Amino acid sequence: MDKFDIVIIGGGPGGYVAALRAAQLKLKVAVVEETHLGGICLNWGCIPTKALLRASEIHHQLHNLAGFGFSADNIRFDIRKIVERSRSVSRQLSKGVAHLLKKAKVTVFEGRGALDGQKGGDHIVAVTQQGKVTGRLAARHVILATGARARQLPGLETGSKTIWSYREALVPDAVPKRLLVIGTGAIGVEFASFYRQMGTEVTLVDVAPRILPVEDEEISALAEKAFIKQGIKIITSAQVGALKQQGDHVTAHIEAKGQAIDITVDRVIVAVGIVGNVENLGLEKTKVQIEKTHIVTDGHGRTAEENIWAIGDIAGAPWLAHKASHEGIIAVEKIAGLHPEKLHPLNIPGCTFSYPQIASVGLTEAKAKEAGRTLKVGRFPFIGNGKALAMGETEGLVKTIFDAETGELLGAHMIGAEVSEMIQGYVIAKTGELTEAELKETVFPHPTISESMHEAVLAAWGGALHF
Amino acid sequence: MDKFDIVIIGGGPGGYVAALRAAQLKLKVAVVEETHLGGICLNWGCIPTKALLRASEIHHQLHNLAGFGFSADNIRFDIRKIVERSRSVSRQLSKGVAHLLKKAKVTVFEGRGALDGQKGGDHIVAVTQQGKVTGRLAARHVILATGARARQLPGLETGSKTIWSYREALVPDAVPKRLLVIGTGAIGVEFASFYRQMGTEVTLVDVAPRILPVEDEEISALAEKAFIKQGIKIITSAQVGALKQQGDHVTAHIEAKGQAIDITVDRVIVAVGIVGNVENLGLEKTKVQIEKTHIVTDGHGRTAEENIWAIGDIAGAPWLAHKASHEGIIAVEKIAGLHPEKLHPLNIPGCTFSYPQIASVGLTEAKAKEAGRTLKVGRFPFIGNGKALAMGETEGLVKTIFDAETGELLGAHMIGAEVSEMIQGYVIAKTGELTEAELKETVFPHPTISESMHEAVLAAWGGALHF
Repeated sequence: MDKFDIVIIGGGPGGYVAALRAAQLKLKVAVVEETHLGGICLNWGCIPTKALLRASEIHHQLHNLAGFGFSADNIRFDIRKIVERSRSVSRQLSKGVAHLLKKAKVTVFEGRGALDGQKGGDHIVAVTQQGKVTGRLAARHVILATGARARQLPGLETGSKTIWSYREALVPDAVPKRLLVIGTGAIGVEFASFYRQMGTEVTLVDVAPRILPVEDEEISALAEKAFIKQGIKIITSAQVGALKQQGDHVTAHIEAKGQAIDITVDRVIVAVGIVGNVENLGLEKTKVQIEKTHIVTDGHGRTAEENIWAIGDIAGAPWLAHKASHEGIIAVEKIAGLHPEKLHPLNIPGCTFSYPQIASVGLTEAKAKEAGRTLKVGRFPFIGNGKALAMGETEGLVKTIFDAETGELLGAHMIGAEVSEMIQGYVIAKTGELTEAELKETVFPHPTISESMHEAVLAAWGGALHF
Repeated sequence: MDKFDIVIIGGGPGGYVAALRAAQLKLKVAVVEETHLGGICLNWGCIPTKALLRASEIHHQLHNLAGFGFSADNIRFDIRKIVERSRSVSRQLSKGVAHLLKKAKVTVFEGRGALDGQKGGDHIVAVTQQGKVTGRLAARHVILATGARARQLPGLETGSKTIWSYREALVPDAVPKRLLVIGTGAIGVEFASFYRQMGTEVTLVDVAPRILPVEDEEISALAEKAFIKQGIKIITSAQVGALKQQGDHVTAHIEAKGQAIDITVDRVIVAVGIVGNVENLGLEKTKVQIEKTHIVTDGHGRTAEENIWAIGDIAGAPWLAHKASHEGIIAVEKIAGLHPEKLHPLNIPGCTFSYPQIASVGLTEAKAKEAGRTLKVGRFPFIGNGKALAMGETEGLVKTIFDAETGELLGAHMIGAEVSEMIQGYVIAKTGELTEAELKETVFPHPTISESMHEAVLAAWGGALHF
């Protein structure tokens, strides 16, 4: 029986990054992965959607040429080529992960991994393929990193030709004429944005009273306004009844704010949250605790069972690849006897790669108020920014939230062009515990949209200069 | 005679931002501006070039559609519309500055300002229009912010129909077929990139042994490689003889590395540095010291003459709008009795908005070595970044330079897509004096190109994860 310092069950961004870090630390490590290295993120999530969204950016640009002095005739696209490019990017990266693991001398076992008792102080991991045990590994430590899957709700089951999860939504064979997107978290909003940019009539519904419900309320409202302007119909506080498939169409019965409508579309995307992949892991005989389909861990990834760790989506929200990989690094460093800082949830940024983009870190204004803080809030709109004007991207806002007494940056919230690449500045500031004084003193390069980040700090403390 | 706390001579980014800050601090302030509010930056520099570069981005995209699944016929542009859009962006921002100053109750005098003696402890500023004195202002403090202009070299004089400075280069009536750009600083490189993307045959020459000579050598080399791949001819270590105009053409005699060639082009752009606008300011009767056309100041903008301050390009390198406005804020705060930090030159980023973009802050590797530091250098290429791959932007590099003993981030150098919006993260880190430990711990959002910034830190300290 092969023996390892660490066996990681799941080769998604949490699992494979943990493996790479373990290899750097000279630990003997294996990854057991059932389907694709890179997990959903790389194969059916973050990465292929970004490739699609690049296409929708191009489409948007092609249909907004005149204002920039350009013209073109007979603009067209081939959705098969767009999808194939997206798949090819995923394949390339998945191969890249395999290559990185090989180079780092991480052993990869194809198959499903599950805990199967203990022996001589080691946990045993059984690897099965199509129901047959193909290997047994002894591991001093096991990291559970099997991720999560789309939540299935009764009446909204996905996987058919017309009712899609993210998975079918990534590989359309045609751009639907009419689309209903149920759920307005990042996944729902990104698909709504992609298909709308590609010409689809999109209706976006959520049971919540506003779209992007985890974002700051002001940012949600701006996103809603921008999407409505683009022609997306938005219905919030909505209850969606069981979907009715009829041939190539689907009818949804929606009740919202006392009104009921039936809406018929060609395709439906359901993105109503996720559930952790906690089944068939052999957890029943362990002390590992599960709450609402997620494994309970401390800030270092430790479960209640000795030497069993959990990271990434299976360990709970936020369900983000960078949270997973960071947790992977923390757990492995802890195993190696280093002293990593615990995960600090308020320093983990989140991005929605729609048009416009949304990015944020830390507390929303409402949460900061709930926490009893006295606030200084700064806002700076892109319309006051020269680069945004030069780019033709004047719809956007940066909002900063500080503790009025200590100058601590509690949260930062952005909507508009490039914000997904800009938010890291605030994350660095929060991680380094910079106060408003140091942020005010920082010289942002001109002309960049990032100057709005500076202005939003100044706005919180006595006034922006350019507004 | 109107009396002010501060009179600012020059309404460029240094001058007008200083005025806005002074108004916030309840000081009575006037700006004397001869031509355009917003200065060269806003009217003939940073801003209109960015509008042009947006057009060249679109042009590039339109000619690279197939790989993304798109096609279009009869792609064309109207350079007059592109130029008009650029001018319109500048006009809008210049009006915006006038509006901001008015709202802040800053008095603006149109005309040329010059020192004209003292009276009762105040400096006197004379305002002249077309040679006639139209006003005299009494000011406790005067801030000189008249900027700089393009250096004119014998034989390379600009301003004709065929030999351009940045000014003529911004308002072409046609895209030249063949263009020679003399000078490979940010201005020369940006114009070379713009015109190349628009279809011009471009030759870029410099007396220096490499392009972008102030950037890190490795970044320069990557930029050179990218530009050559795009079809730009580059001649370094080159001496350019007097240009010969013949009708609608210009011939340049270039000697480089022992070889001599004559090159005939339609237009030449000369961008061989700048000289400070120190003339006709009445400095002769003051103690203000001038060195190489620039006014000598301390880190707060103070000159050798009491209550005379200088900021921005007139006060020396780096000739960057954000350095000017930051100096303006420092000088005004000092005048107001606050305690601003001195300007920290190594925390001022610089950007070149070519394709690919270049951005940097702090010491280059060579300068850091010269300073006698023991270094840890990290590199991460965009080819290892998932978002860059999804965007089709895999040419790029992030390079970080740390002090091996203290963990201090000495410099960061980037080339590739989006880097002008990303560099602020490292600037924040440097301003907040973060060490490598805090940068390693920072969670960068996935999937973004900014993750390369994290990897480049990891690469310096034990190894990147994705390469």
